[in-house]
Amino acid sequence: MRVAFVIFDGMTALDFVGVYDPVTRLRSMGILPDFSWSIRAWTETVTDDRGLRIVPDSVAESFEGFDVVIVPGGFSTRTLRHDSAFMAWFRGIEVVPLKASVCTGSLLLGAAGWLRDKPATTHPSAIDDLANDCREVRSERVVDAGDIITSGGVTAAIDLGLHLVRRFAGEAARLRIAEQMDYRNGITPEAPDRG
Amino acid sequence: MRVAFVIFDGMTALDFVGVYDPVTRLRSMGILPDFSWSIRAWTETVTDDRGLRIVPDSVAESFEGFDVVIVPGGFSTRTLRHDSAFMAWFRGIEVVPLKASVCTGSLLLGAAGWLRDKPATTHPSAIDDLANDCREVRSERVVDAGDIITSGGVTAAIDLGLHLVRRFAGEAARLRIAEQMDYRNGITPEAPDRG
Repeated sequence: MRVAFVIFDGMTALDFVGVYDPVTRLRSMGILPDFSWSIRAWTETVTDDRGLRIVPDSVAESFEGFDVVIVPGGFSTRTLRHDSAFMAWFRGIEVVPLKASVCTGSLLLGAAGWLRDKPATTHPSAIDDLANDCREVRSERVVDAGDIITSGGVTAAIDLGLHLVRRFAGEAARLRIAEQMDYRNGITPEAPDRG
Repeated sequence: MRVAFVIFDGMTALDFVGVYDPVTRLRSMGILPDFSWSIRAWTETVTDDRGLRIVPDSVAESFEGFDVVIVPGGFSTRTLRHDSAFMAWFRGIEVVPLKASVCTGSLLLGAAGWLRDKPATTHPSAIDDLANDCREVRSERVVDAGDIITSGGVTAAIDLGLHLVRRFAGEAARLRIAEQMDYRNGITPEAPDRG
């Protein structure tokens, strides 16, 4: 299984790192030894919405060969969705079978047209905005629509990550990773998935 | 108010970003306009325990002039505390009035001798290890000992961040930032601080 983490200027770093941590533990904790990932950007360096600089693993490359792609949010998504060069690259994730987003990352999925017939969620402040591009916006922590999974604001990244862990490796793996992350609220049983 | 975020090779990125997000919102959300921070490392680039590369704001510089320093954890803390070059730089944070750590970051504070007469906490797996350098290890989410604040594993970074927000700017600021982070568990009233 290969995961692409998309990062971009003006993102909220915790949207990305909050899901990167639980998901990458699938390999670091020896649960799925063949699990791999790549951090992919459109620019050489990515600066988050408050100045933190991250170096991606690849720049402006395609998304061929990935099984999952994960997209963070941040205020910049509101403008990036109108940036034709960025969106031309971003639309390349169409080939990835499972797409997931955190926070206002769903605005990018919506702008690409992938939420027109799906339920989805986003940051509470972006509910009305997302509604223009989405069949039904829900106020839930994680909305699993099968091949697209969206999640709520910032810290919902952790819940999305644990949800993905369960989809990829089962409930025992989710519990083990949540415990290693000292995520006490994440250790209680989750609501049923696939909205 | 000036905050130094210490980062280092082999750290757990979420330990750092989980506290960086709420604390830096003090400025990005206009709560404390004079609030500033710097991300400080001993090396030119920092690679986390799973390969994520972060570029610090300064390399091997002193900690003069900071009011607060925040130290993440990660498996590398178990070896870094015996690395005399790293520890010589790290001990420079002695001049900073308020020191805080996430997860096994407390092992570095303990190795520097600063927990000998203090209560503290750490990742659940490191409780016995920390006990060698600490007056009393507690199994709590955040232990506020006045001029040193320690927190539990990985996701406790968020709780530490919100605790610091309350110390710097009050309970209304903590509630506002927790809400913006969509951190539902963080919106309930906290236990009394200063253990």
